[in-house]
Amino acid sequence: MIPSELNESTALLLNAHPQASTDQQACQQASIDRSGYIPESFADGVIFAQSIDDVVLAMSLAHEHGVKIVPRGAGTGLAAGSCAQAGEVVLDLSRMNQILDIDPVEQLAAVQPGVLNAEVNRAAGEHELFYAPDPASTAICSIGGNIATNAGGMWCAKYGVTRESVLSLLVVLPDGQLLRTGRRTIKGVAGYDMNALLIGSEGTLGIVVEAVLRLRPKPRFTSTMVAYFADENTAAQAASAVIAARLQPSVLELMDGKSLRAIDAALGTEHQQRGGALLLAQTDGFGAQLEMQALTQTIAPLASHVELAENEEEAHALIEARRQAIPSMELLGTVSICDIGVPRNRLAEAFAGLQRIEAERGVEIFTIAHAADGNLHPIIVVPEGQSITTGAAKLALADMFYLAKELGGTLTGEHGIGLLKQDWLAEEIGETSLQLQRRLRAVFDPQGILNPGKAI
Amino acid sequence: MIPSELNESTALLLNAHPQASTDQQACQQASIDRSGYIPESFADGVIFAQSIDDVVLAMSLAHEHGVKIVPRGAGTGLAAGSCAQAGEVVLDLSRMNQILDIDPVEQLAAVQPGVLNAEVNRAAGEHELFYAPDPASTAICSIGGNIATNAGGMWCAKYGVTRESVLSLLVVLPDGQLLRTGRRTIKGVAGYDMNALLIGSEGTLGIVVEAVLRLRPKPRFTSTMVAYFADENTAAQAASAVIAARLQPSVLELMDGKSLRAIDAALGTEHQQRGGALLLAQTDGFGAQLEMQALTQTIAPLASHVELAENEEEAHALIEARRQAIPSMELLGTVSICDIGVPRNRLAEAFAGLQRIEAERGVEIFTIAHAADGNLHPIIVVPEGQSITTGAAKLALADMFYLAKELGGTLTGEHGIGLLKQDWLAEEIGETSLQLQRRLRAVFDPQGILNPGKAI
Ligand SMILES: Cc1cc2nc3c(=O)[nH]c(=O)nc-3n(C[C@H](O)[C@H](O)[C@H](O)COP(=O)(O)OP(=O)(O)OC[C@H]3O[C@@H](n4cnc5c(N)ncnc54)[C@H](O)[C@@H]3O)c2cc1C
Ligand SMILES: Cc1cc2nc3c(=O)[nH]c(=O)nc-3n(C[C@H](O)[C@H](O)[C@H](O)COP(=O)(O)OP(=O)(O)OC[C@H]3O[C@@H](n4cnc5c(N)ncnc54)[C@H](O)[C@@H]3O)c2cc1C
Repeated sequence: MIPSELNESTALLLNAHPQASTDQQACQQASIDRSGYIPESFADGVIFAQSIDDVVLAMSLAHEHGVKIVPRGAGTGLAAGSCAQAGEVVLDLSRMNQILDIDPVEQLAAVQPGVLNAEVNRAAGEHELFYAPDPASTAICSIGGNIATNAGGMWCAKYGVTRESVLSLLVVLPDGQLLRTGRRTIKGVAGYDMNALLIGSEGTLGIVVEAVLRLRPKPRFTSTMVAYFADENTAAQAASAVIAARLQPSVLELMDGKSLRAIDAALGTEHQQRGGALLLAQTDGFGAQLEMQALTQTIAPLASHVELAENEEEAHALIEARRQAIPSMELLGTVSICDIGVPRNRLAEAFAGLQRIEAERGVEIFTIAHAADGNLHPIIVVPEGQSITTGAAKLALADMFYLAKELGGTLTGEHGIGLLKQDWLAEEIGETSLQLQRRLRAVFDPQGILNPGKAI
Repeated sequence: MIPSELNESTALLLNAHPQASTDQQACQQASIDRSGYIPESFADGVIFAQSIDDVVLAMSLAHEHGVKIVPRGAGTGLAAGSCAQAGEVVLDLSRMNQILDIDPVEQLAAVQPGVLNAEVNRAAGEHELFYAPDPASTAICSIGGNIATNAGGMWCAKYGVTRESVLSLLVVLPDGQLLRTGRRTIKGVAGYDMNALLIGSEGTLGIVVEAVLRLRPKPRFTSTMVAYFADENTAAQAASAVIAARLQPSVLELMDGKSLRAIDAALGTEHQQRGGALLLAQTDGFGAQLEMQALTQTIAPLASHVELAENEEEAHALIEARRQAIPSMELLGTVSICDIGVPRNRLAEAFAGLQRIEAERGVEIFTIAHAADGNLHPIIVVPEGQSITTGAAKLALADMFYLAKELGGTLTGEHGIGLLKQDWLAEEIGETSLQLQRRLRAVFDPQGILNPGKAI
């Protein structure tokens, strides 16, 4: 039975839904994500949806009783977008985790929202296809969450972000109605681009219950390289030189010296002996090797050491180091993975600015970057037990926003606004846009029951 | 002075705007596009905007006096989206045609809306860059119109449509306010994707007065080929085989036998002697030649004749034939360029269906297709002087919609709904989506003064 201290409307909903749970531990786990944000209270309950009908029922009840709903995928978000508190009910989509259909000829996958990103890529791989938006969290994040945040990843340098790989969505609206957006064809312009409006809307407009994803041919050839540089400034110059040379690597990742130190400490590797910053690059397609030659020539004058992968295994090892960067930092304390974007030729200035912020605020900042997109992840680390969303860490986050702004950039390249970055949204997009977006939100959700307080 | 038979509110606006004209010929020319749709009356006046201020003034006056405004770029649209009638005022953007800035390092161009697509590509070319969305109308259509229709073109097979190449917009809203959407960085997720909402909105949400476009590195190498086949069915099979072989041509265009006949008649070429249908393919990048080899091997068993361009000039000649297709048909009568999209492996069925429609409706249909995207342009031709938007031609258009629908496709891949395709929109996107989109439109334009009756 439902604890009596719950407010009447959430109790009504939780009582009426067969998949609802008010288990304390479930509520607690479902109220936090990976942002480091700790809500002051936890959700009143969690609905573990197993079907579209479960979601429709949840939203219909929420609509009827005015209950606030927080959609949740795998909870790996970094903006507190799926965090919940008392008076709210979490709608957990992680059990709707089936791949419904892969069409290898059309190169499409129809999936449920809870399926993990890596799982889609595994299934696509069986047909020599891949799903391009590959967050570093691929093994643990859900497609629904990816869609709601417009997630990016390493391959986005060449293949675009989630928006470029979603053809159609099935969405449950805040009043329980079903909406289909987009289409199964590559192109189509009948009506407004409702796909794109939903993608990146952080669970504020509707619940994604099915998606048709665009897969791409697995490149026949790839070539992978790691180069080391004296420092971040030189590595950033090298990354900008790659862009200026009109090359189009499928991966171009930068790691600063502190990140290398963290990885070496965690994994026993010896990156630091080869340089003070690292650039990981991959080219692909029929011209992978030729393009890699051109790339290597472009950066060679700046590099202290270059390693070309001779085979798949070596390539995998080089890429794996990048994937281990964040887990390595997590061993050092509580992390907050920030997410600024700057014009691609201002990367060096961004690194310099981050070093200034680190010194001024007295926090540790490790930085990795999707260099080809100008998207940096400065990772603030504070000692275990210390808050990562208030105090010096929060001041550093504010500084990063103003740094990005000054360089003509953005507060968030791929993680979203969630709860965490509310303070700066209006300043970035402007009051006119914010008010307009709020009115658009109200068209979908006049009652304000879907993920209130998040995103816009 | 303003003619006295105009309604009071349009007269007020036209009297108050320094760039307004009520010249009969100007009004008439500004009231039609290239769709073949003939409005029953013409616009009351045209405002030839020269600056953002001119647009702001126009919309502020329109807002104040409740005047209906029809935005217009170059008037090459194929959906009657820029057609206007009595009681409406056309806001012509064609004189705002400057390239404001090209940033060759960031690979961006900031442009005014009236600049022609080809002009952007010419300017980008000076920096070894190009602008990917290249409609066949490149020489005569404006960037503002491209954005408002989410235009596609030949290179979209590999590089995506207009949406994938627009980073930021400056928009005048229906009440005269200025709105900036997007950002100058490649990635960014602060707030909803307002860029994408505006792109393809057919001038119903706001007037684009500036755009930041993403340019791309001109491929170092390209390889171009033309193959001929016995008939459309075989050519369509070949196109599907290219996709199934996991190849990624930058161009993959199909022309049917009737199109070849029209081109031969117009230009004195001899395409028909080589086959009954044609496939034009281009590969690009460091592996252009290797990929073309693979492509040629894939289609060779089906082809009757294959020609590989030996140099730039020959490549240009092969591509030019495709660009001349529509002008050649225009010599034969009044044309209506239709625009269905189907899954890429159902092209052959689409061609068969079109032949059925041609026979049943007794109209001539010539078909060319962006085959890699499954986007077909069946071109209906009726004798000069006969209506192309009513009678048999309209019945054929309806048939095409149901054909596309049956094959899991769409009524419009890249031209838009405009006035012309209103009848089938609800059936394609569903009543829920249509009503929702209308409410979104009302958020931007509560008075309903911007391009009324068009698109959704
Ligand atoms: C180690 C690590 C590395 C990471 N690397 C990257 C990276 O490289 N790139 C990147 O973009 N992100 C990265 N992330 C962030 C995170 O993985 C992404 O934001 C991911 O898309 C979140 O997916 P999720 O399923 O965990 O969503 P959640 O955290 O559960 O939710 C995220 C948001 O989506 C909403 N939501 C979830 N499911 C749905 C649904 N079905 N319908 C509607 N709304 C929904 C929630 O309400 C919330 O607002 C990383 C995170 C970690 C911990
Ligand atoms: C021979 C020929 C070939 C073509 N080939 C292609 C092709 O390959 N691919 C393709 O996509 N299209 C093609 N088209 C169609 C047409 O060229 C495109 O739709 C183009 O994008 C229209 O641009 P425009 O400047 O002529 O716009 P217009 O016809 O003037 O207007 C089109 C729509 O955009 C709106 N609009 C125009 N400017 C603005 C603005 N600044 N702000 C807000 N709204 C605005 C109008 O209200 C209208 O709804 C072709 C047309 C012809 C005649």
